[in-house]
Amino acid sequence: MSKITSVRTQDVRFPTSLELDGSDAVNVDPDYSSAYVVISTDSGESGHGFVFTCGRGNEIVTAAIRSYGQLLVGRNIDELIGDLGEASRRLVHDSQLRWLGPEKGVSHMACGALVNALWDLRAKREKKPLWLLLSEMPAEEVVSVIDFTHIQNALTPSDALDLLSRGASGKEARIAQLQLEGFPAYTTTPGWLGYSDEKLVRLSRQAVADGFGMIKLKVGGDLADDRRRMRLAREAVGSQVKISIDANQRWEAQEAIDWVNELAEFDPWWIEEPTSTDDILGHAQIRRAVAPVKVATGEAVANRIVFKQLLQAEAIDVMQIDSTRVAGVNENVANLLLAAKFEIPVCPHAGGVGLCELVQHFSFFDYAAVSGTMDNRMIEFVDHLHEHFTEPVRVKNGRYQAPRLPGTSAQMHSASRDRWEFPAGAGWLEITQGAAVGSGHNS
Amino acid sequence: MSKITSVRTQDVRFPTSLELDGSDAVNVDPDYSSAYVVISTDSGESGHGFVFTCGRGNEIVTAAIRSYGQLLVGRNIDELIGDLGEASRRLVHDSQLRWLGPEKGVSHMACGALVNALWDLRAKREKKPLWLLLSEMPAEEVVSVIDFTHIQNALTPSDALDLLSRGASGKEARIAQLQLEGFPAYTTTPGWLGYSDEKLVRLSRQAVADGFGMIKLKVGGDLADDRRRMRLAREAVGSQVKISIDANQRWEAQEAIDWVNELAEFDPWWIEEPTSTDDILGHAQIRRAVAPVKVATGEAVANRIVFKQLLQAEAIDVMQIDSTRVAGVNENVANLLLAAKFEIPVCPHAGGVGLCELVQHFSFFDYAAVSGTMDNRMIEFVDHLHEHFTEPVRVKNGRYQAPRLPGTSAQMHSASRDRWEFPAGAGWLEITQGAAVGSGHNS
Repeated sequence: MSKITSVRTQDVRFPTSLELDGSDAVNVDPDYSSAYVVISTDSGESGHGFVFTCGRGNEIVTAAIRSYGQLLVGRNIDELIGDLGEASRRLVHDSQLRWLGPEKGVSHMACGALVNALWDLRAKREKKPLWLLLSEMPAEEVVSVIDFTHIQNALTPSDALDLLSRGASGKEARIAQLQLEGFPAYTTTPGWLGYSDEKLVRLSRQAVADGFGMIKLKVGGDLADDRRRMRLAREAVGSQVKISIDANQRWEAQEAIDWVNELAEFDPWWIEEPTSTDDILGHAQIRRAVAPVKVATGEAVANRIVFKQLLQAEAIDVMQIDSTRVAGVNENVANLLLAAKFEIPVCPHAGGVGLCELVQHFSFFDYAAVSGTMDNRMIEFVDHLHEHFTEPVRVKNGRYQAPRLPGTSAQMHSASRDRWEFPAGAGWLEITQGAAVGSGHNS
Repeated sequence: MSKITSVRTQDVRFPTSLELDGSDAVNVDPDYSSAYVVISTDSGESGHGFVFTCGRGNEIVTAAIRSYGQLLVGRNIDELIGDLGEASRRLVHDSQLRWLGPEKGVSHMACGALVNALWDLRAKREKKPLWLLLSEMPAEEVVSVIDFTHIQNALTPSDALDLLSRGASGKEARIAQLQLEGFPAYTTTPGWLGYSDEKLVRLSRQAVADGFGMIKLKVGGDLADDRRRMRLAREAVGSQVKISIDANQRWEAQEAIDWVNELAEFDPWWIEEPTSTDDILGHAQIRRAVAPVKVATGEAVANRIVFKQLLQAEAIDVMQIDSTRVAGVNENVANLLLAAKFEIPVCPHAGGVGLCELVQHFSFFDYAAVSGTMDNRMIEFVDHLHEHFTEPVRVKNGRYQAPRLPGTSAQMHSASRDRWEFPAGAGWLEITQGAAVGSGHNS
C-alpha cells in the first residue's frame, strides 16, 4: 500500500502582459499563470495538475489547492486512483468546503487541479496518455467517475452507458487513425485585439499556409475596428477557411445580436462568449437571432449543471470545454457525454499556458470512444509557452498529433516553474529589478 | 483627503459542529465562520465586512479578501465611498482577477466583503444605519451603485429609476413605521435535522409563543423522517402558522417534485433550494409541478445574472438574497430591484454568524424605498451567535427591530474575533487541547 506524502503547490506566472499576447475585449493585460500542484507518494510516484489563471489572484487559487490538498495527504493512493469517482466526490462535496462554491469558481477549479493530478498519476502508472487510458477503460468504470448529481434530468448513468456502448463500435480503428493523423485544430494566434492590422493579415495568411481550417478573431472592443479587421481577415484567408469571432462576454444580449449581425456579411462561423456564460437564457435569445452564425461558449462555464441547461435551452451550437475550469477529468467526461446526448460538437477551449496540452486529450477520447466523429470538431490552438512542458503539443498541418507519453501532458519543467515562480523566481526578479512591468502587478 | 492605510483580515470560526446547530441534509457539520475584514484609514475611520462560511476553507476566503484588499490600500477613501459603484466595479471587473469567477464563488464573495466594509465606513461617517442611508439616498445615487452588466435585458437604469421613484411615495411614513414596529421574521431554530422530535416540538411551540408567523424545517435526509417531523411540527404550530421546508439543494429535479408532493398534505408554504441553485430550468420544472407550494432559493445564487434568469424563467416565487454571497450591498440592491420589477417578494436568507445582522438592512430598505409592502415578506431568524456583534439583532414578537447604530451592523467584538481566530485563538486552543473536536477540522 502506498500513501500520499505531500501535496506541493507553486504560484507560476509568465509575464505575457508585456507583449499583449492574449489581449481581448475583457482580458486586456493577462499574465498567463498556473496554480501548479504536484501530488507525491511514498512509492516515488507523482501526479501533476494546475489551474490556469490570468495573473493576479493566482495566489488565491494556489492557496485553495493547498487547502483542499490537506484532504488527500496521508490517504491511500491505490484506493484514490482505483475509484476516481469517489476521490472527486470527497473533494467536491466536502461538507464544509462545499459552501465556497458550490461547484464554481476558485474552490471548484482547485478541486479540478487535484483530481487531474490524480489522473496524471494513474495514467503514468498505467503507462498511457490520458486519452488512451480513457478510451480503453471499461465503459462501467468511465460511468463510475461521473458525478450525476443535478444532471439526471438530462443524462442518467444508463444514458451514459448507452452512449459509451455505442461509441465502442469501431473504437480500435479510430484510435489507430488518431495515432496516425491526429485531430483538427484551429488557431487564435492571428486574432488578438492588441495586434496591428499588418500582423493580423500576416498571421492569418500564415495560418492558412500552416493548414488550419479555421482562425478566430477577438471582437467587441469597437464595431468599426471589428468590421475592418474581419474584412482584412476574410480577404487574407479566402472564403473556404472558417473565421470565428470571440467577444469574451463583452455584451448585453441585444447588443450581441446587433453587433454580430453587423459582422454577418463576413460570414463568421461562430460567435463565442457573446455574453455572460452564466446567462443561459441570454445565449438562447442570441442564438435564435443570429442564426446561421453559431453560438459557442464554455471556457468560463462553471460546471456540468450550467452546460446541461445550455443544451436543454438550445442555447449553444458548440460546447467549449476547458480543462481547468471544472472539477477535472471526471466533470469533463460528464460534459462530453452531455454534448453527445444532445448531439452538439465539442470544440475545446485552449491557449493560456498548458491548456492546449491538457485539453487535447478530451477531443481524442471523444473521437475514439464517444462521438466517433470529427465533423465540425476542432481543438483551439495558440502557439504560446509550450516549451515549458515535458510533452509540448505537436501541431502539424493544422492538426494536433496524438500525445504519446504516459500522463495528462500537464507536467511543466521544474526549471520553468522555479524561474517563473511569483514573485521571487529569477525571471520575475529580473523583470521587477528592471522595472519593466507596470503597476498592475500584485507584487 | 484621507487614505486607506490597511486592509486587515481574520479567519474567525465558531465550533458549532459540536452541537449540530445548523445541520441539514447537505451541511452536516458546519463550524459557522467568518472571513473577516477591517478597512482602516489615516483619518481614524474603519469599515467592517465579512464572508460567512461553514468552516474549512474559511482560510481560502480570508486569503482572497487579503489579495483583493491590495487593490484598495493607499486609495483615497473619500473618492471610494463617494462613488461606490465605481469602487465595486474596480474590484469585480479587475482585468486579471475576473478570470477567477467571473462573478462567482470565493473571489466574488471576497469582493462583497470589501464592498460591504466600504459601505460600513460610509454609513458610519453619515451616522446612519445602512438601511436608512440607502432609504434616504437620492434615487440617482442608488442607481449609480448598481452594475447593470448582463442584466439589461431584464432591468435597465431607467427601469431602476422608475421603481425607486414609485417607491419614494409614502417613504417617510414607512420609515417611521419600521422604526416603531420593525419587520416580520420567521425562525429556522426548531427545524435542524440534528434535533430530536421532542426538541422539534418544543421549539416549534416556543416559536408560536414568541410571535413568529412561520417556522422552517430542514428536509431531504429521509422521507419517512420528514413526514413524521412535518406532522409533528404542524400539530405543534396549528394551521394558522406557516411551515416552510428547506432541502439545501439535496435533490434531482424529479426527486424534488416527488418528495414535495409527499409532504403536500402538511401544507408547506415554500420549498427552499429543492435542487442546485445553478439549475434555473430545474427550478422552473419543479415550480410547475409542486404549485401551490412555492419555490424559494437564493442563499447560494452566485450573482444578479442567475437571479435575473430565475425570474425570467418563472422559476421562483420567493427570492432569498444573502448578504455575503454576492458582491456586497451594490449587487443586493440590484437583486431587490430585479425582484421588484418581476413583483416577487424578497425573504432574505440569514443564520450562520452575522448574516441576520447584515441582511436585515435590505428588507428594511426594500419596504421603505422599493416594494413598499410587507406582504409575504419575512427575514429568516436563527438565534445563534448574536452576542458577538456590537449591535446584535433585536427580534421581538416575531419581528426584527430596526437597527439604530451607524453602519451595517456587521461589526464583531474584537474580543470575540481574537478568541475564535483559527487555529490559534484561545477558544480553539482550549478545544483542541481538550481534543473535543473530531477529525473533520482543518487543523
